[in-house]
Amino acid sequence: MRAEDVAGFRSTLDDLDHAAHLLVDYAIECEGDPELAAVAFCREQSTAQWRRPGVDEDLRPRYGAKLIDLEVLATQPAFSYGLGAPAKGEVSACRIRIAHPHGNFGPRLPSMLTALLGEGAFFTAGIPVVRLLDITYPEGYLEGFEGPQFGVDGLRQQLDAHDRPLFVAVIKPNIGLPPEPFAEIGYEAWVGGIDVAKDDEMLADVDWCPFAERTRLLGRARRQAEQDTGRPKVYLANVTDEVDRMRDLHDIGLANGANALLVSVTATGFAAARALRQHSELPLVGHFPLNAIFTRLPHFGVHTRVITALQRLAGCDAMVLPGFAPRMRTPVEDLLASVEGALGEMGPILPALPVLGGGSSASSVPGTHAALGTDDYGVVAGRGVTSHPDGPAAGARSIVQAWEAARDGVDLDDAARHHGELATALATFG
Amino acid sequence: MRAEDVAGFRSTLDDLDHAAHLLVDYAIECEGDPELAAVAFCREQSTAQWRRPGVDEDLRPRYGAKLIDLEVLATQPAFSYGLGAPAKGEVSACRIRIAHPHGNFGPRLPSMLTALLGEGAFFTAGIPVVRLLDITYPEGYLEGFEGPQFGVDGLRQQLDAHDRPLFVAVIKPNIGLPPEPFAEIGYEAWVGGIDVAKDDEMLADVDWCPFAERTRLLGRARRQAEQDTGRPKVYLANVTDEVDRMRDLHDIGLANGANALLVSVTATGFAAARALRQHSELPLVGHFPLNAIFTRLPHFGVHTRVITALQRLAGCDAMVLPGFAPRMRTPVEDLLASVEGALGEMGPILPALPVLGGGSSASSVPGTHAALGTDDYGVVAGRGVTSHPDGPAAGARSIVQAWEAARDGVDLDDAARHHGELATALATFG
Repeated sequence: MRAEDVAGFRSTLDDLDHAAHLLVDYAIECEGDPELAAVAFCREQSTAQWRRPGVDEDLRPRYGAKLIDLEVLATQPAFSYGLGAPAKGEVSACRIRIAHPHGNFGPRLPSMLTALLGEGAFFTAGIPVVRLLDITYPEGYLEGFEGPQFGVDGLRQQLDAHDRPLFVAVIKPNIGLPPEPFAEIGYEAWVGGIDVAKDDEMLADVDWCPFAERTRLLGRARRQAEQDTGRPKVYLANVTDEVDRMRDLHDIGLANGANALLVSVTATGFAAARALRQHSELPLVGHFPLNAIFTRLPHFGVHTRVITALQRLAGCDAMVLPGFAPRMRTPVEDLLASVEGALGEMGPILPALPVLGGGSSASSVPGTHAALGTDDYGVVAGRGVTSHPDGPAAGARSIVQAWEAARDGVDLDDAARHHGELATALATFG
Repeated sequence: MRAEDVAGFRSTLDDLDHAAHLLVDYAIECEGDPELAAVAFCREQSTAQWRRPGVDEDLRPRYGAKLIDLEVLATQPAFSYGLGAPAKGEVSACRIRIAHPHGNFGPRLPSMLTALLGEGAFFTAGIPVVRLLDITYPEGYLEGFEGPQFGVDGLRQQLDAHDRPLFVAVIKPNIGLPPEPFAEIGYEAWVGGIDVAKDDEMLADVDWCPFAERTRLLGRARRQAEQDTGRPKVYLANVTDEVDRMRDLHDIGLANGANALLVSVTATGFAAARALRQHSELPLVGHFPLNAIFTRLPHFGVHTRVITALQRLAGCDAMVLPGFAPRMRTPVEDLLASVEGALGEMGPILPALPVLGGGSSASSVPGTHAALGTDDYGVVAGRGVTSHPDGPAAGARSIVQAWEAARDGVDLDDAARHHGELATALATFG
């Protein structure tokens, strides 16, 4: 690439038409001159061949992605993750910011992902290690999306739950129970104090637990629990399925008394979640299967805050995120960034509720609460509710008791002296 | 986990009801006892809590994933990819085969992926490094899918091209050209001998090149090229977009003369591709954006043969795969396994055509041909056609000339003595 070719794929923040561009941050590892590599990275994800041979034209001013900023963080002899070494010279680990003209694809999630995570990003010569770190969207682009229909405030209104986190239980055994005992466990969790009883994200519309029958019984159990407790409750029904079937399941669930829907967004595709959002009368909650493939490795793939924000853009009112438990292998700073992706400023797009999942029981509630520094979150307890030795209602009470202790600054062990369910939970779940 | 708990998540191939299970191969890196880890891996991706407290039941025989085979390949002090070391003991790198009851989710791609690549696979305690290597589907399960509508034979009939690979050109400049010059380049490539002229996978239905106008002009150019050459031609139009819009674009393209459709399947979601397949009257071709995130690292994510087979299961008649060029960073054995995922035996599911993309020009044609050992493939040339100094028609001729030389066992440089377009291509593209 010649110097004048490079200039066409460069810009500065001052010179940029901000309304026309996404600002996209990547970490890349490249061989050779970092600036040339970063410019090639811009070229390949936009107008790779920017003129016809023999024609006097330059497509770059309007269609080229432009390198805005490049910082070489380190040099190293080889690429991370065993991806080899350059024939000569060192590898430069860089952080780059590029401006990508969104008019190249418009407010279409699959088309945006194709440009930002496609051949241009992952197959530019000499750049085998790439991580998409963040996307900053101009307001006009965001106006092309519906975003959450209810958002944090809508969920709080639905549950009449303000100034506290929302408590979610997974109905377990997660796979294999027929609808009747499944509904009984949901009822127990609700009357114990849980706000939301949810299907496991793996539970489909299967013959041994058909969605129609399940939502009918759970809808009835929910209304009973609401009557018995005087509190609104939510049955979060999993509709993860083929695209058209998700809309059918929405209609069935809505009619039967499911009042929020769960979607494994990366498994269905962000576009399928958005299609459901456009159809839905109910809040949508994203779940995280497949996401670890994108997010786990610190120098490769996609940062979890981007995935969270994409779910929000697709219309999720809340999203279950891998929580603080060691097995979730999510560094605290990544988790907090993901929470920010759900709650942070995003122009016309409503905030969505981050819901921390994985391994939560009464014992982990205070730590989660302290780490987040906000009440705008949900916490999912699975076996912490349904494996409580005294039953799901006791498990649910143990979660609420643990949160009340955290709220009041009371040590959990002290609180357990006055709350048998909490004491049993701490003894059982550590 | 106690010994009797372990037994419930184990089986042997002899004892297995094969019709009821997928066989799923993973590479995992685990700490502690490998058998216990592998059993926990089975438990977490199926019936994690397999009985209600106080109830005499066992959900595992029907709903449990079962460990069939475990091979410890190596022990090492730490997990790959900088994912830490166990508090005590070594890491075991294992290959495991498990049997997963497909009745847990049914023939639903998102639900299957949620089980096989969800919390159970990527968040089982002590197993941070996971790669899904292969899935073997029983015939009865495959019958729940439509698969390719046309397949390899259908594409060959459409193009009246038998006993040779199919030649594909990307119309470039890929981003920024209005429909008229875009159609002219397509026409040139067709009359030069290319079978298929395609949109770049990043080219959306944008105001500067609207899909309706583009397909109208390209449809007309295609028919003109067919008349001028006496050969059938294909215009492969990119419909990667939001879910419902993909079906609209199908209808528009079909009416206007597009006669195959391109979808970035991982970007839209496999489910969206399947929904399009159920609607489509045209062949569907998958493209590979995002796939490298799943496939690049040898011990993490998903093997490329699985992604290819999933696209086939979703109904793609062909799929563009990263080819042999060094920048595609696909080991030859992975590429060949991916080709097998497209063409290999899959019960009632038709074979799909593997199409090798990325960096192809006349000079790479013989190497590709020799490596694949079959004529059942396509080859995509981008700049190898449209950046040919003598124009796209000459570029197209250079591809065909290179293939004829490969077929006849003639050295490329020898062939170039009689073919000016080939000589220029070799001089230009190396």
